[in-house]
Amino acid sequence: MAGEANLKRALEFAAENRGQFVEELKALLRVESVSTDPARREDVRRAAQMCAAELQRIGMERVELVETEGHPLVVAEWMHAAGAPTALLYAHYDVQPAEPLEEWLTPPFEPTERDGNLYARGAVDDKGQLWIQMKALECWMQAGGLPVNVRVVLEGEEEVGGEGIAEFVKTKDERLRADFALVCDTEMFAPGLPTLCTGLRGMVYTEIEAQGARTDLHSGMYGGAAPNPLVALAQVIAAMKDGEGRILIPGIYDKVQRPDEAELRAWAALPFDEEEYRRGEVGSSELVGERGYSVMERTWARPALDVHGIAGGFTGAGAKTVIPARATAKVSVRLVPGMTCAETFGLLEEFVRARAPRGVEMTVKLLHWGEAAVIATGNRYIRAAADALHDAWGRETVYVRSGGSIPIVGEFARELGVPSVMMGFGLPDDNLHAPNEKFCLENFHKGVESVVRFLDGVGSEPV
Amino acid sequence: MAGEANLKRALEFAAENRGQFVEELKALLRVESVSTDPARREDVRRAAQMCAAELQRIGMERVELVETEGHPLVVAEWMHAAGAPTALLYAHYDVQPAEPLEEWLTPPFEPTERDGNLYARGAVDDKGQLWIQMKALECWMQAGGLPVNVRVVLEGEEEVGGEGIAEFVKTKDERLRADFALVCDTEMFAPGLPTLCTGLRGMVYTEIEAQGARTDLHSGMYGGAAPNPLVALAQVIAAMKDGEGRILIPGIYDKVQRPDEAELRAWAALPFDEEEYRRGEVGSSELVGERGYSVMERTWARPALDVHGIAGGFTGAGAKTVIPARATAKVSVRLVPGMTCAETFGLLEEFVRARAPRGVEMTVKLLHWGEAAVIATGNRYIRAAADALHDAWGRETVYVRSGGSIPIVGEFARELGVPSVMMGFGLPDDNLHAPNEKFCLENFHKGVESVVRFLDGVGSEPV
Repeated sequence: MAGEANLKRALEFAAENRGQFVEELKALLRVESVSTDPARREDVRRAAQMCAAELQRIGMERVELVETEGHPLVVAEWMHAAGAPTALLYAHYDVQPAEPLEEWLTPPFEPTERDGNLYARGAVDDKGQLWIQMKALECWMQAGGLPVNVRVVLEGEEEVGGEGIAEFVKTKDERLRADFALVCDTEMFAPGLPTLCTGLRGMVYTEIEAQGARTDLHSGMYGGAAPNPLVALAQVIAAMKDGEGRILIPGIYDKVQRPDEAELRAWAALPFDEEEYRRGEVGSSELVGERGYSVMERTWARPALDVHGIAGGFTGAGAKTVIPARATAKVSVRLVPGMTCAETFGLLEEFVRARAPRGVEMTVKLLHWGEAAVIATGNRYIRAAADALHDAWGRETVYVRSGGSIPIVGEFARELGVPSVMMGFGLPDDNLHAPNEKFCLENFHKGVESVVRFLDGVGSEPV
Repeated sequence: MAGEANLKRALEFAAENRGQFVEELKALLRVESVSTDPARREDVRRAAQMCAAELQRIGMERVELVETEGHPLVVAEWMHAAGAPTALLYAHYDVQPAEPLEEWLTPPFEPTERDGNLYARGAVDDKGQLWIQMKALECWMQAGGLPVNVRVVLEGEEEVGGEGIAEFVKTKDERLRADFALVCDTEMFAPGLPTLCTGLRGMVYTEIEAQGARTDLHSGMYGGAAPNPLVALAQVIAAMKDGEGRILIPGIYDKVQRPDEAELRAWAALPFDEEEYRRGEVGSSELVGERGYSVMERTWARPALDVHGIAGGFTGAGAKTVIPARATAKVSVRLVPGMTCAETFGLLEEFVRARAPRGVEMTVKLLHWGEAAVIATGNRYIRAAADALHDAWGRETVYVRSGGSIPIVGEFARELGVPSVMMGFGLPDDNLHAPNEKFCLENFHKGVESVVRFLDGVGSEPV
């Protein structure tokens, strides 16, 4: 329990150090911590070390890097708020690849301010939101100490499936023991509209490999007799979805749990203009997807199948008349509550096997996965979060889900019994995973204020 | 007309210089003349210069590089065989890209002899066969002069559509004036079986571009609402062919001319074991293609549609959860007599336009093209070629077609009224356009002998 004066001091420190906070964030954004790229392994570690150094500097204790099979975790704690609950702060310091580089207006790893936004790979996903947590902690340390006990766990593999942290969570290490987790890796439904996220889709991410002839063949000599694995992949992928976007893999919808009526009504009441979303946010001539479901339901509460890339043959400039021997496609299915990764992968694998055309052998490899999660909203942490957001932004907090996947939320719940609060400050036009990713700087600063207030609010109630 | 003694001298020179000929060919194979790659422009020119220097060295006259919009032509002549016909020798000095490099047992531009074969990109297609022509000319020059008048035209754009030579042919330049052309860019039906090629498929090579959203999108956030251009391409490509391999583009078969019964009977009599072809040559679990047509008819006299590569999204190691804004597919149709490039491209374009799924705009770009060709077999040049091959190989010459495309053969006929003799020495397992391309060295040497004999035979009859 912090008291009004301490909250005031913490918020003042935030207000006085806005410029400094942004400069620090830029330093972290310059590190090319692309977790999927083996060539950047040292960069990823450097980002972890920077986070650890900052935690140390602001006064957190037992700061250390926990090694995993992949990239390290960063853990820390400050456990001196006697009688107060313990928060587990989670964010990730790794980022998506920046390609295609030529579409960035300014280089992805040279953070640049334009029109009140900070542009860089990872600006909002998730280094900017990670830094919100760090700075909220610093504000309280500067105000005399944290109003709650805090444990921190930062990972460097969120963009590649998060196996390292999943393993660590399974060990139930005492450095993860907490009453709730604060996850800052989601977004606001609209500018200025404080938002809590109450559900995430899961994901099964696969690579389908198609093998035709023994070696690449001349398409003149063999076209008409030799199987073409690219055509075969196209045929199998095309069979996975109908023209509307409904998935045609048998059984895929069987166990989908529909949100309850109250949740659907709340979504319908959100300020959402489908035409503006199509034009301003997606920028396509039409939206696609299953008939009979709103955009919100389609992207938050229905499975989705997407193809992310198809390799094989020749894609350079000009022409090469080759029938490739082998081709691969990266295909993912987003999962919603009721579905499981194991079942979904099984259905996909079975479908591919049954549909592989003549002369082409197909196998499906599971690259990574995470279960869907919905979180209960009737606990004190969610209430404190809604209140803190209300106070910081001056508007009622709304509850949404996200179509994205943060597997750790499900793992915190299942393995540790720790409920998550997903408080995020991204905006719909932040270009996550795309060129010109950005973070609205006002949201960054309001985010710091929100977390400062939230820690105070949680600390104000006895456990 | 050369006389027995001169033929004997020419053949002796060939026999005595086998090692030297191969070493010279290796030097040409070391030049990375990949015509489709803008970064190798200078390498392509260097190959042209080496050919020109060799023509000069062996005593050809008026040797020069003819500049085009793309890569240069090499022309030369020797016109002192009074009363004899004039041959136009054609071959190409450019090669296909060597990718995927990791599948080569020895590097593609370091020619290596193994088991009587010479391995290198271009070994058989077409530098080895080009060098056969050069060496046959040299043998005759060493024997006192050519038995026919000879003009030479070598191109460096055969693998990228041959626009430069097509333009040059259209000018009807007198350096192309000839009674017949000798094209060495085809293969033998089987080892030891002398073969003349009497027909080629044409080709329309396109790039289909699919545009969905304005920018790449996060597949979690937008999966289920945003169009996916990779899925859209898969759907359009899948609709182009049925499970058997029959092309489903309306109208595509309407004008196909079937070979006459005599030609089909001759093909049926060729020594061909379909199971051995599947297992030994293609190496797939099954062959594909239209029901009711033999492999020969499917690959020589029926159109074929193939996909050569699909770009867009993420194909690196690991996973990236992106819905790409844009994706492209390289798609070609092989043409047979009766079809035209213009009509075929029109049908394909119309099909893609009509089939583009909701939310994705599709355009089709024509990358390159060439008409199909069949050549008459009742002329003295074909007869002389069949006889020369018989004499060199000791077996009856067979007549086949090729599924590949050599657009220049049609252009020689249409623009210049020059019939072609397609005498080739490749083998079915030479890995054209694929890793580990090779040329059987015995075929190289027998090829030189065949061309030496052919020029003698053509020169022995009065025009």
